[in-house]
Amino acid sequence: MALYVHKYGGTSVGTVDRIRNVAAKVGRARERGDDIIVVVSAMSGETNRLVALAREIQEQPNAREMDVLLSTGEQVTIALLCMALEQYGYPACSYTGGQVRILTDDAHTKARIVDIDTNRIRRDLADGKIIVVAGFQGVSEAGHITTLGRGGSDTTAVALAGALKADECHIYTDVDGVYTTDPRVEPKAKRLQRVTFEEMLEMASLGSKVLQIRAVEFAGKYNVPLRVLSTFGEGEGTLISFEDTEMERALISGIAFNRDEAKLTVEGVPDRPGVASRIVGPIAEANIEVDMIIQNIAEDATTDFTFTVHRNDYARALQILQQTCAELGARKVTGDDAIVKVSLVGVGMRSHAGIASTMFRSLADEGINIRMISTSEIKISVVVDEKYLELAVRTLHDAFELDQIGESA
Amino acid sequence: MALYVHKYGGTSVGTVDRIRNVAAKVGRARERGDDIIVVVSAMSGETNRLVALAREIQEQPNAREMDVLLSTGEQVTIALLCMALEQYGYPACSYTGGQVRILTDDAHTKARIVDIDTNRIRRDLADGKIIVVAGFQGVSEAGHITTLGRGGSDTTAVALAGALKADECHIYTDVDGVYTTDPRVEPKAKRLQRVTFEEMLEMASLGSKVLQIRAVEFAGKYNVPLRVLSTFGEGEGTLISFEDTEMERALISGIAFNRDEAKLTVEGVPDRPGVASRIVGPIAEANIEVDMIIQNIAEDATTDFTFTVHRNDYARALQILQQTCAELGARKVTGDDAIVKVSLVGVGMRSHAGIASTMFRSLADEGINIRMISTSEIKISVVVDEKYLELAVRTLHDAFELDQIGESA
Repeated sequence: MALYVHKYGGTSVGTVDRIRNVAAKVGRARERGDDIIVVVSAMSGETNRLVALAREIQEQPNAREMDVLLSTGEQVTIALLCMALEQYGYPACSYTGGQVRILTDDAHTKARIVDIDTNRIRRDLADGKIIVVAGFQGVSEAGHITTLGRGGSDTTAVALAGALKADECHIYTDVDGVYTTDPRVEPKAKRLQRVTFEEMLEMASLGSKVLQIRAVEFAGKYNVPLRVLSTFGEGEGTLISFEDTEMERALISGIAFNRDEAKLTVEGVPDRPGVASRIVGPIAEANIEVDMIIQNIAEDATTDFTFTVHRNDYARALQILQQTCAELGARKVTGDDAIVKVSLVGVGMRSHAGIASTMFRSLADEGINIRMISTSEIKISVVVDEKYLELAVRTLHDAFELDQIGESA
Repeated sequence: MALYVHKYGGTSVGTVDRIRNVAAKVGRARERGDDIIVVVSAMSGETNRLVALAREIQEQPNAREMDVLLSTGEQVTIALLCMALEQYGYPACSYTGGQVRILTDDAHTKARIVDIDTNRIRRDLADGKIIVVAGFQGVSEAGHITTLGRGGSDTTAVALAGALKADECHIYTDVDGVYTTDPRVEPKAKRLQRVTFEEMLEMASLGSKVLQIRAVEFAGKYNVPLRVLSTFGEGEGTLISFEDTEMERALISGIAFNRDEAKLTVEGVPDRPGVASRIVGPIAEANIEVDMIIQNIAEDATTDFTFTVHRNDYARALQILQQTCAELGARKVTGDDAIVKVSLVGVGMRSHAGIASTMFRSLADEGINIRMISTSEIKISVVVDEKYLELAVRTLHDAFELDQIGESA
């Protein structure tokens, strides 16, 4: 008998019919003789409805009260799902984050899980019940309701799976697995049977929307095998786990991309120690997240400093940089918000040379100019003009024969 | 500095604008230097929406999960009200029933309050905060979410006022006080400045919808002065407290009525010990509530047994009685579901004779036939044909000069 944690997101429980569908799916898993814990999100649209109510009252709603408000979304779903399970003949019991209890720090609206008390759940499992837990929420040491921030239900599921040493944590979504790239961009994209945590982390942080980064980090940290599957269909999905040395690895697992980038450059910065922090400091203070950072070598005692930010922050970052530029005595500030980032990801990269050169050559063959390059141990990212996004993704998908891996890998 | 508990029902917090209105009202009370605890219901319509969702899934929704579901309604309101208070510059803090903690028994969907822990609230009040508590809900010893049943927010407010020894508990509604009778039936009805708990209990149980019976019972038991006021206007409302001997009392405080009655009679019941329980027993077992019961004196060793039930239960009660009638060898069962009950209520009745005769004579003068009579220490109820309801109420209002008391009493 195995123990599985299932997680169903807002779309999967968006209507009464869909909640019934989830109950049937959970019931079938239970019939196989396994213990099941289900983590659910708020019904789709509900969180937005609540946020809108709050914003009508306060432009910057009080964070503590926002958590009290938003946590009701998942609470509705757990009750309805338990009713549906019972209707199908499966004894079930619901728990809010506070009831479990999922202890978090007190950073309202973006709390982190500190500890989970598994006693009640273990007792109920022993009684033959299916346990349904509200995702996305917890309780602070002082007894205040907290939320983990958007997408936090994945984190709840993984944390529960870790705390209970579950055999696998199943994340049910509206896609049937992790693909070599977005099939809407490259129709030849293939579902991967397995990826490693590291690859998944790179893909998630590069804009692949299948899983939340924090959930993948958590899963890696506590060694919880994650499986991404479809709520609405059958199939094995994609298993995310540590690298299996037995397994024949493809060089590249996938191509991720991010449309939301903008880049900014301070040109002719005097090449003195500390200039980087004087440039990035004010940006960070304005709560703008910086993604790639590149500093070219110095020429004539000056250097060019380039970084990327989310496109929404472009105008604000530009304004801040003008000020910094004047203070530093740099030459000028330039920028571009019509760029995208395309990345090759694969643990196979570690042990194979020549990937970067294949990548750059195939892009050049298509006349795609590379504006920035950044690499890590298992990924190579390039920034290109926005208009080349689809072409770049398809070119790389072909160049690395990604349509040959996937389902049969 | 006084301590007040305010309670606002679903209509009072039905929209964002109305929540702002409540925040302004609470803020003005706070400005007078008093400590304020606010108890709120779910936004109007929300509870019905949640019940409908549950019913779509389970015809008889699981009671434990129903409580998990319904308790979200008030939780949304407390968060929004705290945001509105903060927006107006008043520090506020929200609590669910479980957080306070309002300990109840484990009778899901109709739990009773067992104990209230006032420590957190006292601490927050000392910090200068306005406390906002979710009505209608609590938590069982085992940590399950419970609800007190419909209208339970009044009970929450009164129980909190009692536990904290508040100076008054203010129940804000869409009427501006308790009237001598329903102004829609008798336009000359007057607002009462004061009524006693006993009078209010009789009025509430006789169909006056201003307050929930359990809340009035609670208030009487813990000697919490209750005040009924309007959410949408100003004014003193009506104070409900123990009888004040100093006060010149009117004979009659008001006329209550109930349109939902139906009466049933078993005629020619053999007059043996135990027949009453053999008639009422099966009715009670079918969960039908019996209101008035009258048994006339025996003639020819048989008696007639009459009682009233809610009109919705009339058909079912009739069916059960046919069976009982056969078993007892009674003559026959008759009934009427086009009747109403009209009642005079007043603590003054205790010390004044002649009220009943004035009542019966003035009804007879209008040709209104009395079908049943029942009395208690502070009330006289008569059952009359439905068509006479308005005439009976206005006749009695005139006969006892109720338009002369009220505001100036």
